[in-house]
Amino acid sequence: MSELTIWTYDWVPPGPRGFVRDLRLRWACEEAGLAYAVRTIPFEGRETNHLARQPFGQVPFLDDGGLEMFESGAGLLHIAGKSEALMPSDPDGAAQTLQWTIAALNSIEMVSVPWWFLTLSGDQDNGLTGWLGQRLDHMERVLGDRQWLAAGRFTVADLVMADVLRVPKVRAFGDRPATEAYVSRATERPAFRKARADQLALFAAADGTRAGAR
Amino acid sequence: MSELTIWTYDWVPPGPRGFVRDLRLRWACEEAGLAYAVRTIPFEGRETNHLARQPFGQVPFLDDGGLEMFESGAGLLHIAGKSEALMPSDPDGAAQTLQWTIAALNSIEMVSVPWWFLTLSGDQDNGLTGWLGQRLDHMERVLGDRQWLAAGRFTVADLVMADVLRVPKVRAFGDRPATEAYVSRATERPAFRKARADQLALFAAADGTRAGAR
Repeated sequence: MSELTIWTYDWVPPGPRGFVRDLRLRWACEEAGLAYAVRTIPFEGRETNHLARQPFGQVPFLDDGGLEMFESGAGLLHIAGKSEALMPSDPDGAAQTLQWTIAALNSIEMVSVPWWFLTLSGDQDNGLTGWLGQRLDHMERVLGDRQWLAAGRFTVADLVMADVLRVPKVRAFGDRPATEAYVSRATERPAFRKARADQLALFAAADGTRAGAR
Repeated sequence: MSELTIWTYDWVPPGPRGFVRDLRLRWACEEAGLAYAVRTIPFEGRETNHLARQPFGQVPFLDDGGLEMFESGAGLLHIAGKSEALMPSDPDGAAQTLQWTIAALNSIEMVSVPWWFLTLSGDQDNGLTGWLGQRLDHMERVLGDRQWLAAGRFTVADLVMADVLRVPKVRAFGDRPATEAYVSRATERPAFRKARADQLALFAAADGTRAGAR
């Protein structure tokens, strides 16, 4: 049995399929060639049924031979520490990779996720729209002169930044050709495609189980 | 001359003083007993005058003997890697510390900062208020049964989480005694007090320079 276990929900509605964040950890393991297992907790009652493991009632969490972690960003950095494929071992490459990983989780996602959340109530032009535009414009400028964010090659920073930027509403925000090309480059990688297909397959199989239980 | 250099603005208006994020890096160096220098870039023109170093036009950035990094969260993890005082060296302690550091930067600040931003336009009860309440309630529950977040002692995770939670509007959000005690515990530490005092002194001294220039 694999030592690395990624925990996710046993089912989610169609909307978030392909975007549940266990995909980030699957993708990282695929890029690094690390064996892993996927296990599930019930989606129903998710807000309270696993607070001991994840205080915010979310997935994923990662089990590495008994060492448990929540927060997909933390799991990514933990997995990246196992593989040069995700985290360069030279100090400058590692520093660049760390800064862009945190930039995705803090400077970009801190605006894009709440903006997306506010759009759910139907308001595309909400109080965060201007700020999001500024941040995405900065990324467009950065991505205009490089293929990957750090160390001149794909790293875990690209994995998380591309996952942040590929959200459909964010991807459709304005005309940003360099960003669009970057998202395409990242999501055409075999490791991403396998991770996404495996997540979709898990949730689709659960549809059958749920139908059978009725 | 110190190898670690923390870059911040040469001046900021009174409002953000004591909260500009160079404070996080100062605090980390003080906790770890690491020597550091503080240097400044002009506040005026900040949105475009240092984009080569910080694509979002923000501070701080960190220079570690020529290795440059932006994102305060990345700088914190980089500094923490130099000191057991901030990052436990045992795998379980390190994993807990990493997960709670990322939780502060992503799960909490991703809601608290945009919520705070929306309140600037006068709307305390905006579209993120309910979500922020949930996140802060989770933290209150977590902090109800421990003094520090990870490894049974103060770590870099507490440094960043306390810095996120000590924002006045966030601190005033609801009645959360365990969180309030936690913020007090963190901000009463000598390292925090020195870092804050030094930041306040830098900006106060700049008032004189600006007045003299008029």
